[in-house]
Amino acid sequence: MSENVKVAIIGSTGYGGVELIRLLASHPQAVVTSVTSSSSAGAPIAEGFPHLSEIRTDMLDDVDPALIKSKADLVFLATPAGVAAKLVPSLLEAGLKVIDISGDFRLKSRDSYEKWYKKEAADQHYIDQAEYGLSEVYGDRVLGKDFISNPGCFPTATLLGLVPAVQAGYIDPATIIIDAKSGVSGAGRGASLGTHYSELNENFKAYKVNKHQHIPEIEQVLSDVAGRPVITTFTTHLVPMTRGIMSTMYASIQGERSLEDFISLYNNYYEGRRFVRIRQAGSWPATKEVWGSNYCDIGFSVDERTGRVTIVSVIDNLVKGAAGQAIQNLNLMMGWDETLGLQFVPAYP
Amino acid sequence: MSENVKVAIIGSTGYGGVELIRLLASHPQAVVTSVTSSSSAGAPIAEGFPHLSEIRTDMLDDVDPALIKSKADLVFLATPAGVAAKLVPSLLEAGLKVIDISGDFRLKSRDSYEKWYKKEAADQHYIDQAEYGLSEVYGDRVLGKDFISNPGCFPTATLLGLVPAVQAGYIDPATIIIDAKSGVSGAGRGASLGTHYSELNENFKAYKVNKHQHIPEIEQVLSDVAGRPVITTFTTHLVPMTRGIMSTMYASIQGERSLEDFISLYNNYYEGRRFVRIRQAGSWPATKEVWGSNYCDIGFSVDERTGRVTIVSVIDNLVKGAAGQAIQNLNLMMGWDETLGLQFVPAYP
Amino acid sequence: MSENVKVAIIGSTGYGGVELIRLLASHPQAVVTSVTSSSSAGAPIAEGFPHLSEIRTDMLDDVDPALIKSKADLVFLATPAGVAAKLVPSLLEAGLKVIDISGDFRLKSRDSYEKWYKKEAADQHYIDQAEYGLSEVYGDRVLGKDFISNPGCFPTATLLGLVPAVQAGYIDPATIIIDAKSGVSGAGRGASLGTHYSELNENFKAYKVNKHQHIPEIEQVLSDVAGRPVITTFTTHLVPMTRGIMSTMYASIQGERSLEDFISLYNNYYEGRRFVRIRQAGSWPATKEVWGSNYCDIGFSVDERTGRVTIVSVIDNLVKGAAGQAIQNLNLMMGWDETLGLQFVPAYP
Amino acid sequence: MSENVKVAIIGSTGYGGVELIRLLASHPQAVVTSVTSSSSAGAPIAEGFPHLSEIRTDMLDDVDPALIKSKADLVFLATPAGVAAKLVPSLLEAGLKVIDISGDFRLKSRDSYEKWYKKEAADQHYIDQAEYGLSEVYGDRVLGKDFISNPGCFPTATLLGLVPAVQAGYIDPATIIIDAKSGVSGAGRGASLGTHYSELNENFKAYKVNKHQHIPEIEQVLSDVAGRPVITTFTTHLVPMTRGIMSTMYASIQGERSLEDFISLYNNYYEGRRFVRIRQAGSWPATKEVWGSNYCDIGFSVDERTGRVTIVSVIDNLVKGAAGQAIQNLNLMMGWDETLGLQFVPAYP
Repeated sequence: MSENVKVAIIGSTGYGGVELIRLLASHPQAVVTSVTSSSSAGAPIAEGFPHLSEIRTDMLDDVDPALIKSKADLVFLATPAGVAAKLVPSLLEAGLKVIDISGDFRLKSRDSYEKWYKKEAADQHYIDQAEYGLSEVYGDRVLGKDFISNPGCFPTATLLGLVPAVQAGYIDPATIIIDAKSGVSGAGRGASLGTHYSELNENFKAYKVNKHQHIPEIEQVLSDVAGRPVITTFTTHLVPMTRGIMSTMYASIQGERSLEDFISLYNNYYEGRRFVRIRQAGSWPATKEVWGSNYCDIGFSVDERTGRVTIVSVIDNLVKGAAGQAIQNLNLMMGWDETLGLQFVPAYP
Repeated sequence: MSENVKVAIIGSTGYGGVELIRLLASHPQAVVTSVTSSSSAGAPIAEGFPHLSEIRTDMLDDVDPALIKSKADLVFLATPAGVAAKLVPSLLEAGLKVIDISGDFRLKSRDSYEKWYKKEAADQHYIDQAEYGLSEVYGDRVLGKDFISNPGCFPTATLLGLVPAVQAGYIDPATIIIDAKSGVSGAGRGASLGTHYSELNENFKAYKVNKHQHIPEIEQVLSDVAGRPVITTFTTHLVPMTRGIMSTMYASIQGERSLEDFISLYNNYYEGRRFVRIRQAGSWPATKEVWGSNYCDIGFSVDERTGRVTIVSVIDNLVKGAAGQAIQNLNLMMGWDETLGLQFVPAYP
Repeated sequence: MSENVKVAIIGSTGYGGVELIRLLASHPQAVVTSVTSSSSAGAPIAEGFPHLSEIRTDMLDDVDPALIKSKADLVFLATPAGVAAKLVPSLLEAGLKVIDISGDFRLKSRDSYEKWYKKEAADQHYIDQAEYGLSEVYGDRVLGKDFISNPGCFPTATLLGLVPAVQAGYIDPATIIIDAKSGVSGAGRGASLGTHYSELNENFKAYKVNKHQHIPEIEQVLSDVAGRPVITTFTTHLVPMTRGIMSTMYASIQGERSLEDFISLYNNYYEGRRFVRIRQAGSWPATKEVWGSNYCDIGFSVDERTGRVTIVSVIDNLVKGAAGQAIQNLNLMMGWDETLGLQFVPAYP
Repeated sequence: MSENVKVAIIGSTGYGGVELIRLLASHPQAVVTSVTSSSSAGAPIAEGFPHLSEIRTDMLDDVDPALIKSKADLVFLATPAGVAAKLVPSLLEAGLKVIDISGDFRLKSRDSYEKWYKKEAADQHYIDQAEYGLSEVYGDRVLGKDFISNPGCFPTATLLGLVPAVQAGYIDPATIIIDAKSGVSGAGRGASLGTHYSELNENFKAYKVNKHQHIPEIEQVLSDVAGRPVITTFTTHLVPMTRGIMSTMYASIQGERSLEDFISLYNNYYEGRRFVRIRQAGSWPATKEVWGSNYCDIGFSVDERTGRVTIVSVIDNLVKGAAGQAIQNLNLMMGWDETLGLQFVPAYP
């Protein structure tokens, strides 16, 4: 609970990086001392992001571990898949702490990474070092660590909605079906037909059905908490909005479990964790109700006709699904209160 | 293929009614001779709908069966639940043909209607007369009938996506899970917090989970084609867009069925039916690709890891999900080509 | 009113081209016999535009005047600025009639084109041949012509809103200020940060202030109808929607002119022209009220406090602002009723 | 710069009230001790606003001055027009400080209020007491006052964009034309056809042309800084987005003034005022660049062809246009730094 930490952000010109800047601006014990970009080094960061005018007047630095180490103690990586795999070793060797928001160190199996990401995996040595920071599930392991792999956006919403029920045996893991929906900012700032306004507005699309690279990440955690291999059906859809993820999850109930049983189970599991809010019976979370905040809201329906439970979990993909949880991991690493600098009220409407 | 038909529209000031006006304006053998409204009779229809200025200059008529019969041969009802139940008997007795777009005559069981709709059901006598017009499944029964009950929007998208597989035994009906999403126009033109722009824009919501009145309609048809009772898990979501429905459907595959088997099955089932388009492997339909048209596009993924099929089906809820299929039913009743006046190219983008 | 015309579309993979395909699909006397693309020749057009699946099963042709001439009588160009300038001579020489939707032949002055478009202008010889087809103003000149330059989207909305008042001397041309707003489809299908969904959704932007290439086109026509040079202040804004343009126009009134005077003037000017609808006092047109149609709706406010009139004009930029007016010009060239194949009711909501 | 202040919010169930709750949650020297509602007293505030779950667990109080005084020192009124006029006297007499976000005390002339608002005006005695808190223009007058009338959303964006130029004589006040655009949240949370999602999505509308009640407020200030009566042309439009206002303003330049002259003038005028950001030449502010923040960003174009300047000013209507500026006024009243608790980075994207 002591001194401040100086942080650098690699990938400052993407949405994850710029959201880190927004959130860290009000963090009482972290200060951003370097923002870097491989493509725009030397330019003022506010040039590409005019909303930062007069807020951040600094220039973008080169992605140079020695330079970064001279300015910062810890680095956030908010880079496209494949970049962190190559960069992290030199950052760690330079003595920097690292929180990687990309997917490069989430999967413990290199084969699995290469199958789902279609890229070369990082060194097993560094993969083994990375602590997977799903805060409300594995937060205890993060304290004092130097290298955190921050969970994906879909896995965060999905796992927070499933882990208590799987761990407690309330649902049959073999029956889990996950129907996920995301706002467009999840696709990043790159321009393509797939992110073109006129193609997405007034449109609802399915994509990467059964092929999304977040599937093995979800299964890795569910298998861990179930104590045996779990495979799932997972579909992603694109919603005509900027921020927000909803995972709607279905599973067969094991034993006699009422709606109240599920609500109690989750309230107990997440006791003391401020960022997970369990809804009362009959109340369904909507993505706007967590917009701009680090909350994950979860609601339930138990259907006696089918013997299935429906679980709905929502997050802001750029906050709890990326930059917010990364700062939560920073707090946990440093032994601070996990909510430090993250107590934003959702922006509504 | 002979003479023209004069049609009246009851409920002309809602979205279903006004979409009938749009579509019928280019129908070569139907002419709208009366538009009625219980709330605004006497006013020009273009007053509440300025997009109809100089296109329809007539005044709204009272909802009076004798008056309607003096002007028209057939009436479309695009009214809220509960209205058609009371109105249809007098319309049929006045000698009018009737196509009811509301849910009042879809369920053959009065108990089921009263349980799910929370309203008094229509007379069993009239329920028995109503032919359920899911065109591509039951179209043959519609020819020459006087009273058609037009399917609901969610059931249309869902059933066109499930019926061939259930009927052929490719999937286990007990495992069907339906995750449905709709644009806001499905909620009608009534103003409420639930249709307020600032509450829905940049928001994605679940609603009526396991409680939607379209559940028994879907189960009634699936039970019919399966030859035994089918119950399903069905969730609805609200998408920040005006038009469009997507049903994402999951089920366990029975036997060895490849993706190509599903595509062949559906192509065969829908052979000669112009409004259902089966996508090739790897192509997923998006709601905008059927916007403003009577098409239903369907795509598939077969997942060998889980043994499940994922089926995605999209429609425009106001066209194939309401006014368009109602006109298709008019065509089928009259013995005309079912595509008459409905060959709209989707408006893209 | 005789035989049919076979048409080719160059630039079929942009929004203007694909809208021509949509609209011409229901034209009773024109048939699209060739769709071309310089970038995707040989591919099925429905591959890039799945909404055309089973509607258009043809492959994209090369942009080859001889090939096109073997298939078609007339060609629509829906190409980016600079393409038509080079292509039109060979098309005309091949004996094809041409309707150019791009800006390459709208400005009579090559200098002006090069100043505002920052590209090399077309040959003066061909510029002189091009008839500027603002249908309700210059439609009479189009009959029998071989080469039409179709007006820009902003000029169409703006000029239909200003020409009667300028010509009649009801307003002082020196005081005209035009505040224009457009949906994103006006920027075309090219992917860039400027058309990225997350950058435009929940955002309202000004762009090209006093620099838009449609300024000289507007001034050219206003100068023509005023009988003396007119220069204007013109600002464009980007609205988070796909289709629609609104021009809000301000000018000082000359003489004593009431709201009713303006309404009468415009009703007289546009008498018999079905696609311009003059609103009654107190009714303001909204872009959705013309969505998907060829209408231009115009409303007025006369402010006695300031002595100014405010004129609001709306169109669908892809229809009356591009493909629709191009077909209207086809109709006028051929001596057909100008509304042929264009009587779409706006899609509402 | 001393002790904390306890504040109550009247009208906590509207968008202005709930935004005050969001912003004040991170204010270091103000604490919300009572949230009231005339319609929902006794209910938990989080019931109607689930985004506040576990953040605010209190019940809504009745609107009772004595009760409020027992809990708070100062009250914010975020009520519909006409309510504050009746309520403020009893609040002031109870010894509460008051910041009124509604329009009831902005106009110094009762006649003007009654003409434009179509409601009975407040007592002249209380109108005279109210200090109009346009922070960057009249902020000096606010210190130590007990009763502040907070400016309207359109006037804030418009006046911050015009006052320096009018005061310095750079533009001719008689030529000012204001074309304003607002997101839908400006219309409040009341449900009506005018706030219905399907009516507004993919739509752009003009409304209250030359009739908006913010016109006399704008003119009152411009007349004050010009030193003579100013009347203006003012049009409002509704943008399909939730938050954000842009005012695009046009005026004839007086004297020889370059773009750089305008930029210098504004930079000087707003020196030391953190919430106004003047854009460099060629950079245009967009509403998303101030979303969720208290900034007002202003850009310019000087057009030599017409001798006019175009000024673009953007704010978040719920922050700088309502709750944010109200807190800025609280800070100024109390003698605190005006940015206290308001240093939010805009949420982008």
